[in-house]
Amino acid sequence: MRIGVLTGGGDCPGLNAVIRAVVRKGVTDYGHEFVGFRDGWRGPLEGDTKPLGIPEVRGILPRGGTVLGSSRTNPFKIEGGVERIKANLADLGIDALIAIGGEDTLGVAAKLTELGVPVVGVPKTIDNDLGATDYTFGFDTAVNIAMEAIDRLHTTAESHHRTVVVEVMGRHAGWIALHSGLAGGANVILLPEQRFDLDKVVEYIETRFQTRYSPIVVVSEGAMPSDGDMVTQGGQLDAFGHVRLGGVGQWLADQIEKRTGKEARAVVLGHIQRGGTPTAFDRVLATRFGLHAIDAVHEGDFGKMVALRGTDIVRVPLEEATRELKTVPAARLAEAEVFFG
Amino acid sequence: MRIGVLTGGGDCPGLNAVIRAVVRKGVTDYGHEFVGFRDGWRGPLEGDTKPLGIPEVRGILPRGGTVLGSSRTNPFKIEGGVERIKANLADLGIDALIAIGGEDTLGVAAKLTELGVPVVGVPKTIDNDLGATDYTFGFDTAVNIAMEAIDRLHTTAESHHRTVVVEVMGRHAGWIALHSGLAGGANVILLPEQRFDLDKVVEYIETRFQTRYSPIVVVSEGAMPSDGDMVTQGGQLDAFGHVRLGGVGQWLADQIEKRTGKEARAVVLGHIQRGGTPTAFDRVLATRFGLHAIDAVHEGDFGKMVALRGTDIVRVPLEEATRELKTVPAARLAEAEVFFG
Amino acid sequence: MRIGVLTGGGDCPGLNAVIRAVVRKGVTDYGHEFVGFRDGWRGPLEGDTKPLGIPEVRGILPRGGTVLGSSRTNPFKIEGGVERIKANLADLGIDALIAIGGEDTLGVAAKLTELGVPVVGVPKTIDNDLGATDYTFGFDTAVNIAMEAIDRLHTTAESHHRTVVVEVMGRHAGWIALHSGLAGGANVILLPEQRFDLDKVVEYIETRFQTRYSPIVVVSEGAMPSDGDMVTQGGQLDAFGHVRLGGVGQWLADQIEKRTGKEARAVVLGHIQRGGTPTAFDRVLATRFGLHAIDAVHEGDFGKMVALRGTDIVRVPLEEATRELKTVPAARLAEAEVFFG
Amino acid sequence: MRIGVLTGGGDCPGLNAVIRAVVRKGVTDYGHEFVGFRDGWRGPLEGDTKPLGIPEVRGILPRGGTVLGSSRTNPFKIEGGVERIKANLADLGIDALIAIGGEDTLGVAAKLTELGVPVVGVPKTIDNDLGATDYTFGFDTAVNIAMEAIDRLHTTAESHHRTVVVEVMGRHAGWIALHSGLAGGANVILLPEQRFDLDKVVEYIETRFQTRYSPIVVVSEGAMPSDGDMVTQGGQLDAFGHVRLGGVGQWLADQIEKRTGKEARAVVLGHIQRGGTPTAFDRVLATRFGLHAIDAVHEGDFGKMVALRGTDIVRVPLEEATRELKTVPAARLAEAEVFFG
Repeated sequence: MRIGVLTGGGDCPGLNAVIRAVVRKGVTDYGHEFVGFRDGWRGPLEGDTKPLGIPEVRGILPRGGTVLGSSRTNPFKIEGGVERIKANLADLGIDALIAIGGEDTLGVAAKLTELGVPVVGVPKTIDNDLGATDYTFGFDTAVNIAMEAIDRLHTTAESHHRTVVVEVMGRHAGWIALHSGLAGGANVILLPEQRFDLDKVVEYIETRFQTRYSPIVVVSEGAMPSDGDMVTQGGQLDAFGHVRLGGVGQWLADQIEKRTGKEARAVVLGHIQRGGTPTAFDRVLATRFGLHAIDAVHEGDFGKMVALRGTDIVRVPLEEATRELKTVPAARLAEAEVFFG
Repeated sequence: MRIGVLTGGGDCPGLNAVIRAVVRKGVTDYGHEFVGFRDGWRGPLEGDTKPLGIPEVRGILPRGGTVLGSSRTNPFKIEGGVERIKANLADLGIDALIAIGGEDTLGVAAKLTELGVPVVGVPKTIDNDLGATDYTFGFDTAVNIAMEAIDRLHTTAESHHRTVVVEVMGRHAGWIALHSGLAGGANVILLPEQRFDLDKVVEYIETRFQTRYSPIVVVSEGAMPSDGDMVTQGGQLDAFGHVRLGGVGQWLADQIEKRTGKEARAVVLGHIQRGGTPTAFDRVLATRFGLHAIDAVHEGDFGKMVALRGTDIVRVPLEEATRELKTVPAARLAEAEVFFG
Repeated sequence: MRIGVLTGGGDCPGLNAVIRAVVRKGVTDYGHEFVGFRDGWRGPLEGDTKPLGIPEVRGILPRGGTVLGSSRTNPFKIEGGVERIKANLADLGIDALIAIGGEDTLGVAAKLTELGVPVVGVPKTIDNDLGATDYTFGFDTAVNIAMEAIDRLHTTAESHHRTVVVEVMGRHAGWIALHSGLAGGANVILLPEQRFDLDKVVEYIETRFQTRYSPIVVVSEGAMPSDGDMVTQGGQLDAFGHVRLGGVGQWLADQIEKRTGKEARAVVLGHIQRGGTPTAFDRVLATRFGLHAIDAVHEGDFGKMVALRGTDIVRVPLEEATRELKTVPAARLAEAEVFFG
Repeated sequence: MRIGVLTGGGDCPGLNAVIRAVVRKGVTDYGHEFVGFRDGWRGPLEGDTKPLGIPEVRGILPRGGTVLGSSRTNPFKIEGGVERIKANLADLGIDALIAIGGEDTLGVAAKLTELGVPVVGVPKTIDNDLGATDYTFGFDTAVNIAMEAIDRLHTTAESHHRTVVVEVMGRHAGWIALHSGLAGGANVILLPEQRFDLDKVVEYIETRFQTRYSPIVVVSEGAMPSDGDMVTQGGQLDAFGHVRLGGVGQWLADQIEKRTGKEARAVVLGHIQRGGTPTAFDRVLATRFGLHAIDAVHEGDFGKMVALRGTDIVRVPLEEATRELKTVPAARLAEAEVFFG
């Protein structure tokens, strides 16, 4: 078989580990050939390829990002996009595709499969918000990076008796905030799943100051204050003009400084969380995903994606990737509250 | 309630996270009091305690080791041991115990529960070889440390065209070798679960040299060559006198150097693997274990230990801790073989 | 002797290492006693002390921040401040002070010495901008943290063919930007010492895109565009209201995105750079500074501060701490330019 | 000009940074061409080359090891070696060489220059034992790796009340042991420069046990006990057969366990210390060495090597590389003794 591989959406530590595993097993065990498509669905859409064999995957396991490049191109939003993909795949003699990506990339994969393009998917979301799998690769790396930053910020908070607000990734799901906050010993954790009450946040911080320790607040970029505080925030956001930087984290630090009368500082981790070498957990998970994805292709089991359940890799329908956003259950946040204040 | 806490067996990153979570939740949510027992079962046996309240658990989350100390003391191997423990617990007004440890520590806990001492267990094994739980804390940290060492050794292997043999922990189960080998891109992985064929190992190495890359062999300390090679190894081990250092790793490096005619070096990671700050995965798992263990105590659900199943923490009978050694299944090792050579 | 110790100004990895070395040598070799003053000059001003002996310095070597706390209190700006310090030192029986801090803290120390308060100084500036010493502790840690962030950002830049702008510390001196930019393989480095030409920056970036690699720009928080671009920037800064977050880095990313037509992202490292455990270089330098500072006190050589010259620790007059801001020489920036574009 | 580049001796983090800087500046500023010689002096001896231009040095800055490979080949120990080198250089049209290496590699460079082969040297020794330069690259990385290992071992030592002996690199000079021991808070540091008294070592350890903390001993691989203990050691070494693994570190742990009656463990860091990505200090130093080396070549200033003096890069005669072994002065060891026990 001649198999195309592409990576779509935001980059994520572990993408290269998937690519390497797919190619190593596909070539060595099954004798397949591979073609790399550049920049997600843009690759098959424009017929933009690069060679992908054993030599190309050497040494890429520990490297973050993706050697294939990525984009958010969606062929269904482009006139004649699907037809061009079909034509290009036919021209290139491609028998099947492996698409590595999140909700959007796999949503395209699901629809293409229905339209006769055989695809196997590998789920990728640094936010860990995909219902169909226990974990996705990249998440563990992001959490460790955020935790290390929090570890560092504790000492600076203590030395200056100030509050530090750490804004982490997570627009719709607070997994990174929850896990890095728990791991970093945060005193308050605020998630998109539950609007936060600013009075209560300030109360936790005041409690904390009584023991001379200085508080760390971990907040998802998508967290929002409860209704009463929204007006203020909305205004502030307009003034910034740049929601992606200095959003809720900076707003919160300003509010806390105003209300406690003690210095507060915001740190926005941003893209650091998704770059760099993957952790062992992510390298192993990504590698296993790759090995099982090529098995599915080899067996002709298309329209599926690989997923982690407990310690096993299983196959589930591609539609599950888009069916449900896995948010943090109230019970998990409640569990963490014992460490607040 | 007045609850004693102890940590037994080899130290493991995450022990302090368990202790902290137990005390934080026990004091804050339930109003319990805590007593720390020093050095595993030696503590209750000799009535050796230390204070354990909110102040004592501040700042210990990121620290490796255990603030309670540890030992391998087994009260069942000491004349009148159990009676002394009962008497000491009565004197100290202890209502229940939380025992954090591996097979041995939890084996004692199971027997004591039968004899009327109410215990809840928290499983700990850096080797990840406990059948009752998907993962134990400490394992992820150990694997990451080994992986980082392997990452470093790749460059030195390549620069000198030599083989590097990395000996990692794992006397009876090869989980650390398997995961760190997969994550580190090892060219051969040797586990205790399956005797290795030295000829085949050398063959993989020779293959590797053909592409000018230099091979990394990851070997569990408990891995053994197949029968034909055993005599040599046995003899070598005697000469060393110190099995714990320079065991199979050094032997293997010597054999490889002899047979390939190219330099080979051994690196024995040893105790570095179990020290230092835990990874985020281990901090979160250990924290959740602690929170669920104090819940079990609070509910009077003794004779149980907490365990991870998928993403849930569940309770299982303490006996399960000792029932089954979870070794690496043949399928998992086979999965890795595509990367050999 | 009875010696007071204080730490002033922004926190810096290595402060605890200095404190520990001072106390260890002072107690063990010379039999001195120590008193810790809390929060910089606020401590002696208000007579706010904490115990400082061998037990208090155990385990603090690897910890960031300062166990004594810090502040920017300046007794010369407070009516009767100097008299109150003298009175408090007399009441507490303090014979001499060791002041660890930057320009401001050591400026106070210099004046106090002239007024009859015997002080020895230890220089601290994470920005490395003190003319009297080759290096100060904290700088190496900050540079390594920034470099690791840049390493991570390379992969995300490459995967998405976007420019990443990394804003690092340095209001008046660009040492952190220069060293982290050189170490991280940045394609453009912008310092406060030299106004940058936006056209030239964009030109470097365009050149870089021609090789399909994606550019990293490292910019000091104090860097400024040349006159033509200043109006725009000034306006933007006002709109932000918060100069400390999203200043020049975000402005630059916006300009680059606008001019190149390709995505650009800003990452502001902020306080992560000054927290956490020090590197070996900083621990050794801080320890040696502490050992030599207590020697100076013991010998009654007041009005001096310790400094690094080559590999030697020497003593220089305290005034040198404030005499000259050590900025990056034009030759050092020119040296780096070969890597631009 | 057409310039050959080679790297000799043990690998060292920073070699690739030197190569990259040489090529970047040589091509961009001076328009020179480069030829890479494989595996140290073996390359010019056998005419074994690889391409070396801008594309070949992309992305190598953060990578440990050397893309050119290394060896210990000495052309002066091979009949007709020098003539073959001259002939090969002539055939390849090489005008000058840049040799990056330690005492041996630069010794060859010095002699070749006298024989009419124009060479500029770049000093490399992970042990930091070269008298002509304040520091060499690789050393800072090695010290940080050793320090991080010591940080980890502290917690395991404390949990089990045992002594941990850490054996680090350094056959003739104890710089790595001194700096990593100081940075890691070791309780005893033993160097090759001064025979150690086992009784005194045990005394320090006993003192340490009195405060319930567990001791860490850092020992250079080349450290030796004083005369009285030598017989024992000699014998032990013979029994091992493998001096490079489990040498003085294991011997010391055994002696300490025997004499204190408490467990002691040895950890031999070995090759981990010289692999992997360089620290910022080493990347900056190596880069600057490379930039200055190509300047020297461009100016025709042969027979020189670059060196660090304070914060400046200077040129010194190549002979200085071999003139003097820079060992740890007695004063520096004495300085550290205040932390012993």
